[in-house]
Amino acid sequence: MKQKPLILVTNDDGITAPGLRTLIKIMNEIGQVVVVAPDSPQSAMGHAITINSTLYSDKIRIDDGPQVEYSCSGTPADCVKLAVNEILKEKPDLCVSGINHGSNSSINVIYSGTMSAAVEAGIEGIPAIGFSLCDYSWDANFEAIQEHVKQITNSAIKNGLPKGVVLNVNFPKLSEEKIKGIKICRQARATWMEEFDKRTNPQGREYYWLTGKFVNLDKGEDTDEWALENGYVSVVPVQFDLTAHHTIQDLNTWNLND
Amino acid sequence: MKQKPLILVTNDDGITAPGLRTLIKIMNEIGQVVVVAPDSPQSAMGHAITINSTLYSDKIRIDDGPQVEYSCSGTPADCVKLAVNEILKEKPDLCVSGINHGSNSSINVIYSGTMSAAVEAGIEGIPAIGFSLCDYSWDANFEAIQEHVKQITNSAIKNGLPKGVVLNVNFPKLSEEKIKGIKICRQARATWMEEFDKRTNPQGREYYWLTGKFVNLDKGEDTDEWALENGYVSVVPVQFDLTAHHTIQDLNTWNLND
Repeated sequence: MKQKPLILVTNDDGITAPGLRTLIKIMNEIGQVVVVAPDSPQSAMGHAITINSTLYSDKIRIDDGPQVEYSCSGTPADCVKLAVNEILKEKPDLCVSGINHGSNSSINVIYSGTMSAAVEAGIEGIPAIGFSLCDYSWDANFEAIQEHVKQITNSAIKNGLPKGVVLNVNFPKLSEEKIKGIKICRQARATWMEEFDKRTNPQGREYYWLTGKFVNLDKGEDTDEWALENGYVSVVPVQFDLTAHHTIQDLNTWNLND
Repeated sequence: MKQKPLILVTNDDGITAPGLRTLIKIMNEIGQVVVVAPDSPQSAMGHAITINSTLYSDKIRIDDGPQVEYSCSGTPADCVKLAVNEILKEKPDLCVSGINHGSNSSINVIYSGTMSAAVEAGIEGIPAIGFSLCDYSWDANFEAIQEHVKQITNSAIKNGLPKGVVLNVNFPKLSEEKIKGIKICRQARATWMEEFDKRTNPQGREYYWLTGKFVNLDKGEDTDEWALENGYVSVVPVQFDLTAHHTIQDLNTWNLND
């Protein structure tokens, strides 16, 4: 590896989000940083990519840091694709996404723009980590978790990530001294109980807002939800081979070709 | 189970897409059908959901079939959430999504709106299947695969799907008599080699179109790509617990708490 690793930084809350600005500051201490992030918020975009529309990208400067920055009109996954295939001259050594304003633990990983960027990097063969803080507010306290972000990133660089795996890191909303430590976890079995808020617009047409309650169905003490509820940082290894290998035997008893 | 199963039908190409109309026709022979599908194409939307905007839904009639239909302004995952929590009075016995105009095999499952609808249903505890035909044209030949769609659906109803698993079914672009059979497969390791087509707009600003070449890196003969290339229908069990359980031991050697 070169003296300083090349680190691609992105997110889903947009290039001006305090969570991203904190992540850039931390990564500037570790490597050479290039930022390619959405020009507007892209939360809950899942792994959407832009194929039926055009993409714009602008080189911009937001603060006095040593990083190079580009905003992009697309989704988080678009940002990674554009960075790797168009903007960067060499493959980055690491991609970090976040720090998200809000949780991406358990089933939220599926809907998460933050994690889709990390997964996209993983698909492209780049070690990747998504960071999220369980606090949705714009002025969340990212100071409290800086040392942990740095430590996890340095460990990932030192140890290397397992092939086909990216990390989903979530931080509890706690002050630095109250965080008990870091736990490697599995994704909790959880779901959202949706409630649609039905309203009528000024023209008399009905419309809905999607709202819901998060429900953790999983009593296990090895889950990300347990870790976060008990004051730990959760680290879940996430794979993009979605095959449920353990069910293939069972499905082969269906005799679909008879 | 009631005499006729309640089947929720959706897709990502939009409510007028020929692939969806074919799927409705097939499902009308199997059960009582309710359609909740996007009012416009939503390809490559991944698992995006609409949280920062409003959702509209209209009860509509498109043909003379016995199904009940609603169009929805949201993503495929929104359609399933709205159907299950607002439109349907009882939980459906099955959710089918598609038939997609184009492949959702291997890594495409990650970007797929078709599969995100199936996965969303799975998260809500509903057995679900996504169907895709490896032909992107609007007038693709869906006749050729009708019997296979029916057979796989009936098998899923009869046998029940493993918990936490939905099926990703892809059909080769072949006439009915040339399809050799159905194979239970794993997701091939594949990627897209992106190429950004850089252009200049009439105002002189540069923009990009995302394009790319699909590359199958996986030589295995138990993959969906192998099956499709060799004339078989591929069926991959897809899970939404993304935890790479096999890497947890390894990650626990990192000593993150030292």
